[in-house]
Amino acid sequence: MNKSPDAHRMEKIVSLCKRRGFIFQSSEIYGGLNGCWDYGPLGVELKRNLKNYWWRVMVHERDDVVGMDGSILMNRAVWKASGHEDTFTDPMVDCRSCKARLRADQLVEKNGIKQCPNCGGKDLTTPRAFNLMFKTFVGATEDESSLTYLRPETAQAIFVQFKNILEVSRKKLPFGIAQIGKAFRNEINPRNFTFRSREFEQMELEYFCRAEEGMQWLDYWKEERLKFYENIGIARDNLHALTVPDEERAFYSKGTYDIEYDFPFGRQELEGVAYRTDYDLSQHQKASGKSLEYFDEETKQRFIPHVVEPSAGVDRTVLALICEAYSEDEAPDEKGKMETRIVLRFHPRIAPIKCAVFPLLKNKEPLVAKAKEIVALLRPHMYVFYDEVGAIGRRYRRQDEIGTPFGVTVDFETLGEKDPALRDTVTLRDRDSMKQERVPVKDLPGILVSRIS
Amino acid sequence: MNKSPDAHRMEKIVSLCKRRGFIFQSSEIYGGLNGCWDYGPLGVELKRNLKNYWWRVMVHERDDVVGMDGSILMNRAVWKASGHEDTFTDPMVDCRSCKARLRADQLVEKNGIKQCPNCGGKDLTTPRAFNLMFKTFVGATEDESSLTYLRPETAQAIFVQFKNILEVSRKKLPFGIAQIGKAFRNEINPRNFTFRSREFEQMELEYFCRAEEGMQWLDYWKEERLKFYENIGIARDNLHALTVPDEERAFYSKGTYDIEYDFPFGRQELEGVAYRTDYDLSQHQKASGKSLEYFDEETKQRFIPHVVEPSAGVDRTVLALICEAYSEDEAPDEKGKMETRIVLRFHPRIAPIKCAVFPLLKNKEPLVAKAKEIVALLRPHMYVFYDEVGAIGRRYRRQDEIGTPFGVTVDFETLGEKDPALRDTVTLRDRDSMKQERVPVKDLPGILVSRIS
Repeated sequence: MNKSPDAHRMEKIVSLCKRRGFIFQSSEIYGGLNGCWDYGPLGVELKRNLKNYWWRVMVHERDDVVGMDGSILMNRAVWKASGHEDTFTDPMVDCRSCKARLRADQLVEKNGIKQCPNCGGKDLTTPRAFNLMFKTFVGATEDESSLTYLRPETAQAIFVQFKNILEVSRKKLPFGIAQIGKAFRNEINPRNFTFRSREFEQMELEYFCRAEEGMQWLDYWKEERLKFYENIGIARDNLHALTVPDEERAFYSKGTYDIEYDFPFGRQELEGVAYRTDYDLSQHQKASGKSLEYFDEETKQRFIPHVVEPSAGVDRTVLALICEAYSEDEAPDEKGKMETRIVLRFHPRIAPIKCAVFPLLKNKEPLVAKAKEIVALLRPHMYVFYDEVGAIGRRYRRQDEIGTPFGVTVDFETLGEKDPALRDTVTLRDRDSMKQERVPVKDLPGILVSRIS
Repeated sequence: MNKSPDAHRMEKIVSLCKRRGFIFQSSEIYGGLNGCWDYGPLGVELKRNLKNYWWRVMVHERDDVVGMDGSILMNRAVWKASGHEDTFTDPMVDCRSCKARLRADQLVEKNGIKQCPNCGGKDLTTPRAFNLMFKTFVGATEDESSLTYLRPETAQAIFVQFKNILEVSRKKLPFGIAQIGKAFRNEINPRNFTFRSREFEQMELEYFCRAEEGMQWLDYWKEERLKFYENIGIARDNLHALTVPDEERAFYSKGTYDIEYDFPFGRQELEGVAYRTDYDLSQHQKASGKSLEYFDEETKQRFIPHVVEPSAGVDRTVLALICEAYSEDEAPDEKGKMETRIVLRFHPRIAPIKCAVFPLLKNKEPLVAKAKEIVALLRPHMYVFYDEVGAIGRRYRRQDEIGTPFGVTVDFETLGEKDPALRDTVTLRDRDSMKQERVPVKDLPGILVSRIS
């Protein structure tokens, strides 16, 4: 069977991720663990840059949001009250022919008969509810009294700390609580590389407001979040804000947008922006017996606030960034012959390495010394990479492939050996245009900082 | 029984942590979950600053270290090979009188007879090995084939990815792989606030080297790590590098230092710096059948590198930072009467909020407008906080208590209403000395950035 161009493109992306150290299979030397992934040296930098930019925009630059960081293990009562223990399930079907374990909504249907997508078998079990939470036992006994779960979402930690944080932060409505952290879902079929995995990271904001302003904040956050994705380099044309239809929304939600991205494997959700009403806080107030009300000093009223939740997937967004950045063009090799160049066109703001520094030749001590000086000059401002190995063209190509936006080369002009006026200048190469400009070393920090922030 | 001064001090610290939003009990409204903690708005900032500084010093500022971020769930084979499945246990004893579950090494002994530290009971079970790893099941069945564990340390993720990272990073020995992430231990007795908890975060470096250089790198990293703690504001006098005696070291270790801190509850370990030899990589090579050897291009030899591991606890260090910073002195209240001032003397580098900005009066529009302008001026450079509520003295005191090193006040001089020469100047107050200097607004970013980095 011929692969579609999109499937072929995805294969190349997955291969690059492994080859250059963005993403590896977890426990790979033991055959991996289905649905779990590790980030390598470049992947961890990309993910850090994404999370730090989210924190900057969502917390530090706003007067109306504070952060928190809750534990992954929580009291089981949280998951009873939130409804997860009873209803956080997927319908599961077994194929009796090939023993595949399937999500009921992923069966294929031919002539009205449900079939296994793996083997085409028709001997399927009736669907049964499978709870997606990972269980564990806290304490020395293993029984109902010590059972709890790995959190399947970070949001509930925010709801159960609402009152504490309201008190310490002295915030008035509307205000939000932001959190980044891991969550776990025992997916029946992890798939699409890191897209649907069993261990993942979320960036969530719970934005509390008055009931009458809920719909308006829902639209505000949908727009803010779309802007966010554009600001990290995802083209608006590849983003879609889907209004989730009434029948597909959670029963307590008065409105939900899915922000979707055109992955090579299809249009898929990056983030949900959901108006969750007062459902969660009401559930926890009821179950805990503790008041989660807000006291309005002006109207003297007490009430449970409503909440709008922009909830983004870190791993999905990292994958979208890599897919969006991946491109191929033509560039000359050392001998001037055109060859295919792989380039990750990351926005400089999120690129793992901001600038690579090269001495033209590694066996010329003054070039090497000057290049190392420049590394030291830039390092307090950004993550820089020093490379002296191989022809300069190959070094550029290695950086293009991992999305480093800028390259600085120290050559004989830098040493002032030809033209004294060019002493202490270097070439600054742009990854995308491949154009080089000559700039004084002392101007480098200022130029680069302005281009990466 | 009278409390010791140290116990009293610790109580005040715990109380401040809750009152001002550093640390809360996880799932507090449901009675908590023993050994699990949440970080509130200030705690999360403090923890972020600590982790970011560690990453900067350990990864970004070095040519010989790269980062990674592995998953918490790994293939169970990892924990068989590492020895954790068989031997990562504590000896556990039950007190038949009060039903307390105890670590055998925490029993008290009177006249040679072991007793329960809770009730004094002598009717104790014989110690049995209790594995500290949390179990869970990955996939739709719950049996031996799907069993795995929450990682009890982050280090093993580094060892099993050693070969992948060596290949993509093109590093030569000696070089290191750094990681920050969560780990979990089902402690029999979580205690000392966040110090010994069941869910915690580690900052670990595995530094690979030649066997003959192991002891030398062990000493190098002990010194580097001591410097690190001094650079985040912990006095050298409160730090201790304990040489772990032969009989207390892991059997594979050729040398280990414990870096300890004088907490109010006693001298306790912040970090272990351990020379682990080639034990871990050898175990994984044997168990996986995959070569984890390093090829030396110069000598043409293949061998398994040795490793030195500086492994620090994030939560312990956060707690040490708070304990170290906590102090009380005397300051005048609004009427000039001396009162006790609580002040967290955080190093500006790790303080949650770097600068607070105050308009002298909140009902004077030009003061408020100017203060907000200054917030916008500083925000791209640091986390700032705007406060207009209450007398200025009280606002200073609130910031002192959370360790904000700088306060900027906009007053009538700023507006140029008295002396035109003072227009666009503000007072800059130092938390520790409480001294104020008059500085031009335009100089603020430069002055503050140099003091916080």
